[in-house]
Amino acid sequence: MPGSAVTIDHIRAAAGRIAPYVHRTPVLSSRLINAEAGCDILFKCENLQKVGAFKARGAHNAVLCLTREQLARGVATHSSGNHAAALALAASHFGVPAYIVMPENAPASKVAAVRAYGGAITFCESTQAARESTLQDLCARTGASFIPPYDHADVIAGQGTTALELAEQLDPAPDFLLTPVGGGGLLAGCAVATRALLPSTRVIGAEPAGADDAQRSFRSRQWQAQAAPEAVADGLRTALGQLNFRLILDHVEDILCVDDPAIIHATRLVWTRMKLVIEPSAAVGLAVVLQHAQRFAGKRVAIVLSGGNVDIDKLPW
Amino acid sequence: MPGSAVTIDHIRAAAGRIAPYVHRTPVLSSRLINAEAGCDILFKCENLQKVGAFKARGAHNAVLCLTREQLARGVATHSSGNHAAALALAASHFGVPAYIVMPENAPASKVAAVRAYGGAITFCESTQAARESTLQDLCARTGASFIPPYDHADVIAGQGTTALELAEQLDPAPDFLLTPVGGGGLLAGCAVATRALLPSTRVIGAEPAGADDAQRSFRSRQWQAQAAPEAVADGLRTALGQLNFRLILDHVEDILCVDDPAIIHATRLVWTRMKLVIEPSAAVGLAVVLQHAQRFAGKRVAIVLSGGNVDIDKLPW
Repeated sequence: MPGSAVTIDHIRAAAGRIAPYVHRTPVLSSRLINAEAGCDILFKCENLQKVGAFKARGAHNAVLCLTREQLARGVATHSSGNHAAALALAASHFGVPAYIVMPENAPASKVAAVRAYGGAITFCESTQAARESTLQDLCARTGASFIPPYDHADVIAGQGTTALELAEQLDPAPDFLLTPVGGGGLLAGCAVATRALLPSTRVIGAEPAGADDAQRSFRSRQWQAQAAPEAVADGLRTALGQLNFRLILDHVEDILCVDDPAIIHATRLVWTRMKLVIEPSAAVGLAVVLQHAQRFAGKRVAIVLSGGNVDIDKLPW
Repeated sequence: MPGSAVTIDHIRAAAGRIAPYVHRTPVLSSRLINAEAGCDILFKCENLQKVGAFKARGAHNAVLCLTREQLARGVATHSSGNHAAALALAASHFGVPAYIVMPENAPASKVAAVRAYGGAITFCESTQAARESTLQDLCARTGASFIPPYDHADVIAGQGTTALELAEQLDPAPDFLLTPVGGGGLLAGCAVATRALLPSTRVIGAEPAGADDAQRSFRSRQWQAQAAPEAVADGLRTALGQLNFRLILDHVEDILCVDDPAIIHATRLVWTRMKLVIEPSAAVGLAVVLQHAQRFAGKRVAIVLSGGNVDIDKLPW
């Protein structure tokens, strides 16, 4: 499916499909954060989503787009993050297996999360090659469908329902919408939906400076590899997807980067001012707004808080 | 005003009065917590309230019940907790001073919170006698009205709006409503509202075992002093109010206690499963439900998460 094939119609269809399985998350704001930022911020709380992240949207949509025969054979992915838990939850609704390939050294908390949702874990060596070959073997043996974490039209359409909901929740439209960008599923999906539904809203990707492949790709208009990422926002260290990149080029205004101290400051602000547990990846949008204050001064700014899965025994401060 | 004088009419009037100044907080739930608890729990999220606690309700109602002349001279209280910040915020809407008496050894985070809302702090020695005499001097000198944190009809009526909102938000009615009990403002106000609006719902107070004066008072039907309280739930170490006690006797079914490890476990559950920052005091209701599982098995249980003001650099685990 070419990049242009992810349209607002796909996102609308996804919203209808996943509605029984995901939360319509609230939009919250904080007077004190607005005072610090100098603008009017509307936080879309995907940390309160099922499995604690927007990933529930894309995983459910992809699973629901399978044929009955495909679905019966189960689904599979390699991931140690939120997508794995989301896929396990989505499969559980239909009583079909979710095969999750995880590196042997995956943190115990991530393993526990996938197990809590009923995922069948296969451990492998902690290399990209091992993950891919283990997954391939699994799919060949079981007939399970591979649902990638972001570089997939149905996954992108599912993540785009976040912005579709925002368009219904916000009146008047915001001047800006910021989402974090890692693989680019959330940013690409939200950019397509926003272009169609809130044409005056400018969409900006927020990325950690230590994993800035999306910004480099966007500014050079040429897909660039992710090299040795280092960022406290562990959910955003992945490489930008190809399909995601094309959609982002077409519909996003800019990608702005921030360093780890700014991300940690923003994470703490949301914890202390809004009483919301968010993971550092979710704070990158607010960090961008605080660091580029002039660009957003006096504006109405929507920010997606993408997830809340953080090990509360190992906080980044 | 006698105990019976706090009625559903007062609570309804309070709700109308404070509506422009406080949030209508959401009710959230968690499949995984329900599975652990064996019942269907509906969390009323007062941690997402203004100033991060239900205290915003009572403070605003009390301030709005003052005459124009009283209001002009400002308000005062002695507190190092959420009530002080709530009173400072309420006063700020009308541009009148909030005089807050705090012990010299109050934690920096509490001092900062009161200052952030514009409270004028007077420090005193860390004894009850010093706090009371400093407050008395302040009120005499400025003409400010003393707004106590819980033992006051207008404050109780304000806190009761929490249950009035719940009655509008929940259909069908819950079998139980649990709130934490410290001074008893939240429990008394919610019990009055629940008796009137949800007559089939049983109201239960949740108290730390190390500060069990409300349970002792309730069971002996005789007000009992709080002696050397020790509890991780710092918001619940205060003594039960007199007016609060009489209302609780009339409208509450029981008061159940839990120890600190159970409170810490419940706090962690809400952080990790619901992605909500709550203070330990707010987790006491869930801790009671988990510890007295048989009593609540299969029931529909509403729990007030009372606040989220916790020092994230000094977590209790």
